This record gives sequence, structure tokens and C-alpha cells, in this order.
Amino acid sequence: MSSSPLEDRLGLRWPLLQAPMAGAQASAMTLAVSGAGALGALPCAMLAPDALRRELAVMAASGQPYNVNWFCHTPPVPDAAREAAWRAALKPYFDELGLDTDAVPTGPGRAPFSAEAAELMAECKPPVVSFHYGLPAPALLARVKSWGAFVLSSATTVREALWLEEHGADAIIAQGLEAGGHRGHFLPTGRPEAKTAPSGGSARREAGERGGDCGSDDLSEQMGTFALLPQVVAAVRVPVIAAGGIADAAGVRAARALGAQGVQVGTAYLCADEALTTPAHRAALQSPAARHTVITNLVTGRPARGIVNRVMRELGPMSRAPSAFPLATAAMAYLRTQAEKQGRLDFTHWWSGQNASGCLSAPAAEITRGLAQGWD
Amino acid sequence: MSSSPLEDRLGLRWPLLQAPMAGAQASAMTLAVSGAGALGALPCAMLAPDALRRELAVMAASGQPYNVNWFCHTPPVPDAAREAAWRAALKPYFDELGLDTDAVPTGPGRAPFSAEAAELMAECKPPVVSFHYGLPAPALLARVKSWGAFVLSSATTVREALWLEEHGADAIIAQGLEAGGHRGHFLPTGRPEAKTAPSGGSARREAGERGGDCGSDDLSEQMGTFALLPQVVAAVRVPVIAAGGIADAAGVRAARALGAQGVQVGTAYLCADEALTTPAHRAALQSPAARHTVITNLVTGRPARGIVNRVMRELGPMSRAPSAFPLATAAMAYLRTQAEKQGRLDFTHWWSGQNASGCLSAPAAEITRGLAQGWD
Repeated sequence: MSSSPLEDRLGLRWPLLQAPMAGAQASAMTLAVSGAGALGALPCAMLAPDALRRELAVMAASGQPYNVNWFCHTPPVPDAAREAAWRAALKPYFDELGLDTDAVPTGPGRAPFSAEAAELMAECKPPVVSFHYGLPAPALLARVKSWGAFVLSSATTVREALWLEEHGADAIIAQGLEAGGHRGHFLPTGRPEAKTAPSGGSARREAGERGGDCGSDDLSEQMGTFALLPQVVAAVRVPVIAAGGIADAAGVRAARALGAQGVQVGTAYLCADEALTTPAHRAALQSPAARHTVITNLVTGRPARGIVNRVMRELGPMSRAPSAFPLATAAMAYLRTQAEKQGRLDFTHWWSGQNASGCLSAPAAEITRGLAQGWD
Repeated sequence: MSSSPLEDRLGLRWPLLQAPMAGAQASAMTLAVSGAGALGALPCAMLAPDALRRELAVMAASGQPYNVNWFCHTPPVPDAAREAAWRAALKPYFDELGLDTDAVPTGPGRAPFSAEAAELMAECKPPVVSFHYGLPAPALLARVKSWGAFVLSSATTVREALWLEEHGADAIIAQGLEAGGHRGHFLPTGRPEAKTAPSGGSARREAGERGGDCGSDDLSEQMGTFALLPQVVAAVRVPVIAAGGIADAAGVRAARALGAQGVQVGTAYLCADEALTTPAHRAALQSPAARHTVITNLVTGRPARGIVNRVMRELGPMSRAPSAFPLATAAMAYLRTQAEKQGRLDFTHWWSGQNASGCLSAPAAEITRGLAQGWD
């Protein structure tokens, strides 16, 4: 077993990362995976401040390496007309269920990384901090690096990988389009290669200038792992972590053959004992239904991969109707919750990558050891 | 080096297949690849009868193994209203170039496999015959098998792989969505797992019932190679050949790690000395432009992956406008040819997979030997 910079730097037995999965796991999973010798992740985008403080404290007390994960989107300016259009698009479903679109509570959806979050983290000094949607503003990133955190972010194109390397990522997750959950896509599609890319914020503003979220909704540059991974490896000097479609030790070996120095796995952990996944979600993952996933923006407003459901089939899977990320979440979450109370799963989203064949009902440590055989 | 059924059966040095690329290569490529110890392919869908006879004779005389490739679509009934709508969609471009949509010649586009083609082949008895879009009708398939041909076809989903196995394919090409050119997708999307799938013909009729070509235009079940390959390997007993995103020896090793018994490579041969690719196509493949490919139905009416161009950007890449495959080809080919005469490449399609990093300007035999290092 040859060792990679990731293992040396992070004190891991294998350069295997459990993908952060907001809503589907908390620190119980992180502890189990890190305890087994890989790197567990703590997704923070959906945690209220109290829960965040508690979860960080649990991990800090563990003495294990761990990866604290944030979304670093720029929160959109609420747009009443757009929200009205989104609710109008969903109204037939509200009507069908006897619900009122005016009853949708406003919710935070997913909180972006912030100065407050950085200060909370500074108390625990997590050894690894990862971001989705680029990187935070330079001053915030510097604060994270001030305690020596190793910083990761996801690239879905070669251009994004070059941008992340230039802006301070210590390693890059090459997220092939097989991956479940939110696409890390953060640079607008179709621009010429930019050696001096704009900052994350202005890139997103540029995307905005092209028409709302369209920049990030154009998926045509997104590549499968087989194509993305070797091209990212060839383009950057920092270590590259493969993600997307890796479900077992054979997948780990394949990713290593393509130049990955580490591997990130999400879907294969969704049926772990420590996962917060519902019984229905687990059943879907372990059935042929999991072979039909789609990338949809109907759940949160930004593209994410999950098992196709009725609303994705009827309105999308991609649509111009949703409010901007993460505002679209409120109406869809209300619809889902109320439908579930009526015993209906038409609006329930079940995140999954394109390869759910590794979804074992087993302790996360056992799943970790199975994947780690890819380094034998 | 362990040997696979493919090598034993076909007398190959390595189970490496050059992907058939109609329009981009002829028997010079086939001879070079087979001569080097892999399996060269002869794409026949766009050959006139005389050329077909000549090319088959060249290969038969070579004494080498070779793969004769056909599309086995059901030709659509011409639909004047739909063709008028297609030309109307393209009219602004015709106007811009000073062209008349009435001047479009009717052309065959791509000829489907037929009884006549089978009889022509029977004279040469090609050792391998491959199909795109399922398999021909049982009697035709039996004729092909009568001289002992080893029959291949492409699957883009697990369901298609099971269907092909059940209907007589001797090996299955798992075509990940990284692959360039036409998607082999032939069963409608979103049906429950069918153990007893309908014949290719009725499956296509079923697709038709869902609205023209919509069945085959819904790409949401298409998977990246990392996800598709191991799931197909797990589902079928026949050998599985990996395709999509494999550009070099590392890619071959990765595919083998995921269970592939053979590997098919297309894009990496597009700049070979023997390819018929134009200088502009070669230049695009060897530039960052090749990092932005799209799956489009604007060129022929069925989804195929190529480097994004103006018309794909403006009308698609996927659209309801084109006539049914292959009828859409006529108007777009005329537009392209006339535009090229004016020195414009806005309508020129350059097929490419998502990983053009293996596109060497070199003899096909040298490219073949480079890929074969994946079996060292």
C-alpha cells in the first residue's frame, strides 16, 4: 500500500472520505467512519446554531480526524414574483392534497458558510474543512486556514478544478456526474478557459447576469467520472479525490487507476446503521428503482441527483420554475412533509448517485473496511 | 496477462475494440487496428452498396479479425408536417446563409441493417458483427449467426443489457454516457424492470406510442461508465465490454478493475493517421474546446455526443424540432455543407466523447499499442 499526501497529512489509514450528506447523517456516521480509519464528514448546511455547536463539540472530543462541510453559495435576494411563480407551478399539487400555498413557512433552507460559522469552528479547529460551490471569500478562507485546516472543494469541470487550485484548495474532489446529491458546479458553463478566473462571488454574479441561475443549471459541461477524473488529475498539481459512482473496492481500484489519490463515497453509506435515512429511502436504494436517478433542481433550486419521483417526472427533472437556491426548498419541503402526513411519497426526494449497488445495511465501519479493500 | 473469452474466441492479442465511427473512418483504420492485434471496426450505416461491397472485400481479404457495424433502427415513416417543422426551425439559418429550405435533397441518412446487407455479409462471413439500437429481428439475427459471427450490441442501461443478453448478444458493450457519437439507447425510459422484454421492434413501437422519439430522447436513465459498467457486469453472464471515457492505458486498467472483459475506444482514434477526420475536427479535439461536448439530437434526430457548436447552443442541444432519425440528417447536412462552402463551421458537428485527452496524431497501430499497455 503506497501512501498519499492525504493519508500522511490527515493521519488516515486509507485516503477514503465519506461524503457529507446533509439530512441523511450526523456525527454518529462521522465518528463511525473516522473511527474505522477513513475520514468521516459532518455536513453543517442544515444545522441550527445549537445543533452545530453540539455536533462540532462531539467531533472535537473524539480526537479523530473529521471533515466539516459547508455550502458557500451567495444567498439570493428574495424575489416575491419568482416565489409566486414557483408556488403557482406547485399549486395543482397543493390543491390535490387540500393544501394552501400561502401556508408555506419561510425557512432558511441551507445556510451559507459565514463569519459566525468560522468563529464557531475556530473553537474546535477541525482538521479538514470542505466546501461545495467553490470557496468562501478570501478573508473567510484565510480564517479557516488560520488553524491549519486542510481545505477541500468539489470541481465538476477542469476549469473549476483550475479555479479551486488557484484560489487555495489543498485538494480537489473531482465530482463526476454519477454522484448523488448536489452538483458542486459553480462556474458558468461555456466560457473560454480562464487562467485568472473571477472570485467565487463574481463568478456567481456572472452566472446571474446570464439569467437567474441558468449558469449553474446548464449541465452540458458535466462529465462522468471516467472522463472528468483523469483530465482533472492532468490539469492540477494538488491531490485529486474521485467522487461519483464509486460503490465498492473495485470502484476504489478503478479510481486509483485513473490517478485519484483519494476517493469520496456517499451513496454506499446511505443504508448504514448510522445513517438517518428513512426506511422508504433505504428500500428504494436497495431496489431497481435506484437505477433511475435524475439531476433535478426541483428540491432546492440547484441541481442535485436523486431517485426520480412523481414531481420530478411531471415538472422536470430540470425546470425554470423553482425559486433560487436555497429558497425553493421551503415550498417543496412543506409539500413533501404534508404529503407524507397523508401517507404519500410523491414529493419525497431520495438522494442517490447512479450506483447504489454498494448500499449495504451494515455498520458504517464495516462499509468503510469493505471500500478500503481497494487499497489492499 | 489473463485471457478473456473475447480474446480466445476472436483471436485477438488484447480484448480491445476500436469503436465503429461512421463518417470518420473506413477500412484503412480497421486494417491498422486489427493488424496491431486489437479488433478494428468497419461502420456500414453510411456506405452505399458499392462501397459496402468493396470495403467488406478488403477486410475479408485481410485474413484479420474485424467487426462489421450496423444501426438496426426501424426506418420512420416520412412525415411531411414534421419535416416542414424541422426546416422551419432551421429557416433562420438558411436565410442567414442565403439558402432555400426547399433545396434540401432527400437522402438516406443512415441505412438500417437489412436482409440485403445480411446476404452481402454472408459472402465474407465477418467474424464479428455489432449493432447499435438493439438487435435486428430474430430471422435476420439468425442469418448473421449462421456463419458463426460473434454478435455485439450496446446497452446504456442495465435493462437494455438484460434485454440484449436474452435476445442473443454474445457480448454486451456497456456504453457509458461519456461516449462520443450516437447513444445506443433503444428501450424507452422509465418502465419497470421487464424480465421478458418485448422484441426490439415492439419496444421501439412502444417508444413511439409515448410520442415520436421521446422514448429514446429521455436521457435520464443514462449512466456514467463508473456506474453503468459494474451494474451491467453484475446483471449479465455474457462478457461485458466497457465504452465511454476510456482514452489511454490507465482508462483500460480502470475499466478492467470494474469488471470489463474488453474495452471499446472511439474518440482516441479520431486523430489517427488513418482517420477521415477533417483538420478542423482534429484541431478541436486537441484543444480545450473538446472539454465541452453535448448530447444532441440536432444532427440526425437521435441523441449523439459531440463538441458543442453554434446550432446546438442555440436550438438545443436536445430539441423536439428534428425529424425522426435518420431523416433529420438531410436538412442539417445540407446546411452544414453549404455553410462550409462559405467558410463557416457553425453547423459542423464534431463527434467526440467526454475524454479527448487520448487523441494522438499517430498511426492507429501506435494508439492501439498505447491502449494495450492497460493489459501489461
